[in-house]
Amino acid sequence: MHVFIPFDTERPKTRLSPIFTADERRSFARAMVRDVVEAVRRTGARPTILATGDVAVDGADVRADDRPLTDAVNAALDDASLPAAVVMADLPLVTADALTRLFEASGDIVLAPGLGGGTNALVSRHPSFAVDYHGGSYLDHLDRAADCGATATTVDSFRLGVDVDAPADLPEVLLHSDGAASEWLRRAGVDFEVSEGRVAPTRNHDGLTSPSS
Amino acid sequence: MHVFIPFDTERPKTRLSPIFTADERRSFARAMVRDVVEAVRRTGARPTILATGDVAVDGADVRADDRPLTDAVNAALDDASLPAAVVMADLPLVTADALTRLFEASGDIVLAPGLGGGTNALVSRHPSFAVDYHGGSYLDHLDRAADCGATATTVDSFRLGVDVDAPADLPEVLLHSDGAASEWLRRAGVDFEVSEGRVAPTRNHDGLTSPSS
Repeated sequence: MHVFIPFDTERPKTRLSPIFTADERRSFARAMVRDVVEAVRRTGARPTILATGDVAVDGADVRADDRPLTDAVNAALDDASLPAAVVMADLPLVTADALTRLFEASGDIVLAPGLGGGTNALVSRHPSFAVDYHGGSYLDHLDRAADCGATATTVDSFRLGVDVDAPADLPEVLLHSDGAASEWLRRAGVDFEVSEGRVAPTRNHDGLTSPSS
Repeated sequence: MHVFIPFDTERPKTRLSPIFTADERRSFARAMVRDVVEAVRRTGARPTILATGDVAVDGADVRADDRPLTDAVNAALDDASLPAAVVMADLPLVTADALTRLFEASGDIVLAPGLGGGTNALVSRHPSFAVDYHGGSYLDHLDRAADCGATATTVDSFRLGVDVDAPADLPEVLLHSDGAASEWLRRAGVDFEVSEGRVAPTRNHDGLTSPSS
């Protein structure tokens, strides 16, 4: 299985700006993509990062493509032999087990929904299927599968469903992963505290420098 | 498998007060618990609602217990033959498939983590294990399992991981369920719109009355 991982090298994770500087966000985004690449490799699949700019990640090929996300992914799917998968770069909870369930699920199109109506990962076995990423892409991808006569199924995974966009997402990384992104957060002084039933992120800058990527 | 579903009949879902009245929150909470009971029944397991007050739900036994959540659940687990399960009442995305994965997972204690560090569902096969619900119970339940020499595993499920507490959780119900809670929300004029990459809830009161339970 060929797995494409779109990655914004320049301005990733802008919604984390309340807690991280632009340099820190780039560094944290690279830690997250390292976790995704590692999980993909553990499944035996081949990861290719579709990068908007320069980046190097151990164990992954990199294909530079500065077009918008949707265009870059569709170009990659057009060139690839099917089945092929697309896995977002901001899924540091992902494990090889979760990806294997995605890759092995039946269906011409298999979708892993993300919180807030997005599509965090997918497998395509249908040559006419094209993605359209934006807020709420999950329902659109179901429609697009139907439009090209493809069967669509979903995979039920918390680890694939939690994408890290906002400060409130950071405790999930600390709670459920011990990978590169989790380590990055600990080194950056990010922790969590219990409030209103759900944990909330905190940051302590004492004696800490920004973690490098 | 005996499945306990703790349910607050009096003041449920206070974090939904920005969008629903107290009567509406009680009514919506009952719609959610109907979805949970239905999913449990489809697995062939036996649902018992641990209710703080009067409630009747088709297909479920009801045991009145007005003690705090943790005490009521531990009393139920003490009396039950093991394995037994505890499933929260605010999981309207839950399906029989997701519950079956929970029930069939190996481990003395099987945990389904919820967003924000909670424990949305669990199976206990160990007589010494006791729950302690509060914000961040997931890590505590792992510790408690270790303390009594029990093996602990987790089940990776978006449908078990998304509990409905706050307005931002409502779009998940509309996106991923067509059960009683989803129908209740539609009748209440709740919809969602795309904002900042994730969908956000909206409510239109025009021509609508509050759905009854």
